[in-house]
Amino acid sequence: MPENVNRQWILKTRPDGMPKESDLDLIESPIPEPKHGEILVKNLWMSIDPYMRGRLRDGPSYAPPVAIGGVLQGESVGRVMESRLDGFKAGDIVRGHIGWQEYGILGITGAHVVDTSLGPISTSIGVLGMPGLTAYFGLLEVNRPQAGDTIVVSAASGAVGAIVGQLAKIMGCRTVGIAGSDEKVSYIVDELGFDAGINYKTEDVSVAIAESCPNGVDGYFDNVGGEITEAVMPHFNLYARMAICGRISEYNDDLPSMGPRVLRYVHAAQATVEGFLVFRWADRYEEGRSRLAQWVRDGQIKYKEDVVEGFENSAKAFIGQLGGANFGKLLIKVSDE
Amino acid sequence: MPENVNRQWILKTRPDGMPKESDLDLIESPIPEPKHGEILVKNLWMSIDPYMRGRLRDGPSYAPPVAIGGVLQGESVGRVMESRLDGFKAGDIVRGHIGWQEYGILGITGAHVVDTSLGPISTSIGVLGMPGLTAYFGLLEVNRPQAGDTIVVSAASGAVGAIVGQLAKIMGCRTVGIAGSDEKVSYIVDELGFDAGINYKTEDVSVAIAESCPNGVDGYFDNVGGEITEAVMPHFNLYARMAICGRISEYNDDLPSMGPRVLRYVHAAQATVEGFLVFRWADRYEEGRSRLAQWVRDGQIKYKEDVVEGFENSAKAFIGQLGGANFGKLLIKVSDE
Repeated sequence: MPENVNRQWILKTRPDGMPKESDLDLIESPIPEPKHGEILVKNLWMSIDPYMRGRLRDGPSYAPPVAIGGVLQGESVGRVMESRLDGFKAGDIVRGHIGWQEYGILGITGAHVVDTSLGPISTSIGVLGMPGLTAYFGLLEVNRPQAGDTIVVSAASGAVGAIVGQLAKIMGCRTVGIAGSDEKVSYIVDELGFDAGINYKTEDVSVAIAESCPNGVDGYFDNVGGEITEAVMPHFNLYARMAICGRISEYNDDLPSMGPRVLRYVHAAQATVEGFLVFRWADRYEEGRSRLAQWVRDGQIKYKEDVVEGFENSAKAFIGQLGGANFGKLLIKVSDE
Repeated sequence: MPENVNRQWILKTRPDGMPKESDLDLIESPIPEPKHGEILVKNLWMSIDPYMRGRLRDGPSYAPPVAIGGVLQGESVGRVMESRLDGFKAGDIVRGHIGWQEYGILGITGAHVVDTSLGPISTSIGVLGMPGLTAYFGLLEVNRPQAGDTIVVSAASGAVGAIVGQLAKIMGCRTVGIAGSDEKVSYIVDELGFDAGINYKTEDVSVAIAESCPNGVDGYFDNVGGEITEAVMPHFNLYARMAICGRISEYNDDLPSMGPRVLRYVHAAQATVEGFLVFRWADRYEEGRSRLAQWVRDGQIKYKEDVVEGFENSAKAFIGQLGGANFGKLLIKVSDE
């Protein structure tokens, strides 16, 4: 491969429903040059997250969509190759929205030096990065668990869900996870210490919630939406708190799909449902990161990485994730550290 | 009519969908005798409320259902005819769940002396009673309006909605009401001072919300659920607060009806949706009542009573209310004061 090549994944056509590999394109460009106030970063580990599906849609959202022909967005951790930005030097490990490309440019607002003493580099975009912080703030600030509460989490073996469940255990809660295979259910119960797990593909979720939550549901951390959520909500206790973190089952729907009207359960239980994005707590990331790192060091929080080797496999991995194929935090290993 | 007659409305058959008059029965019984610790109360004004539909259904709810053959439940204000309870004497005006009957028995936990200096007797079960307190606590504690916010309320000319909108105006909010006739819309705008009104029977609610809420929706006080609510939610601003007070459009559904999955809007706006029952603030009723009474005296809160004369018309009035026929706080005038 010639030296001055930057492979990039771009958006070719806006997906209709589940994205196809042909909606994206892998192209080659020259490696960009950093301008004054910028750094050139070589991508080492790239995070693949379900929310990116929303960025492929043209329409109002909390972030602007990817343009046709534009490089796909996403957070990565990489090595500074060249710095024209004070406070950064070649060799530094930085985290930021490099995008789906082998080399990217970051500026002062987008580059964050990674404290490599906290854990392996890849954890800076996993358990100690956005997924871990999402679990930490969403559970503690929105679900507000009390010892003895029953907390249910969907997509429970995923990058966020697995941390939510372990945090709920640390908080003294009964913790029940919903996942998409017996292997994932075994993992959350046997490896992570959840009190119970439900395989939504083989079990009636409503019946299983009734059985595994004999005292009802006090908190629900929702990553999936749709039918699974509609099966959980009727089991809410008085003053239950539901945190909406993601709605992966609905991300491919341009228009809302139909379901039973569930707000009756919110009324009856005097429950609270709150949507959140982790950016709300940006001024507290260091608190969250240091507490998570301590729990990881103590062995109270375990994490699982689902590593896909090779940048060329990114699109396939992303599509697989939207269908529930990954198991653990999905990472593309773009190049050797 | 013979003297020792107590007319009562009882539940004959559980309604399937919208109740029919034949589901209820008007019977005659002897007037009961109060035991030690009880009072006999003559019903003067009886409140008819949509939530009573839920009490006719056999199933879990926040209150036990009315039994087949049982007297329908509801709050009234009446006059003590005979007291065997300390602190109450014949002639006192009391408020309580007398039920759908001309005479009822109340005990120490169910009888509340009415401060008749605050307003006409009937207001003790209207603007100064449960409907007014529901508006007061739901708006202030759940919607938490700030000056400059845009507040939307459904069933806006109703006993609760009309107070919500006027309180929102007092709080300095832009206030938009949704109601079911041009006459009701004129009333809330021209008489009550709402900034805008929407007739959901003749207008596209989503389009009308966009027009009447140019800065989006910060708070939504929901009395109706269903399609109207589904048209409002996409207009939520960041951190919008929705208070679920009632779901009258869904009360006749034994199973949840289907609608678009709206929790995506809660997620995108990082909104909060909270169900509530006014009983949560029982220890603050006096605060609410005295503030409401002051606003009524000052002319800042107006109220409208929809008085149906004659106890025998109760069932018809209740069924009409579920269909949106009433205009203002629906009261049965059971007997002269």
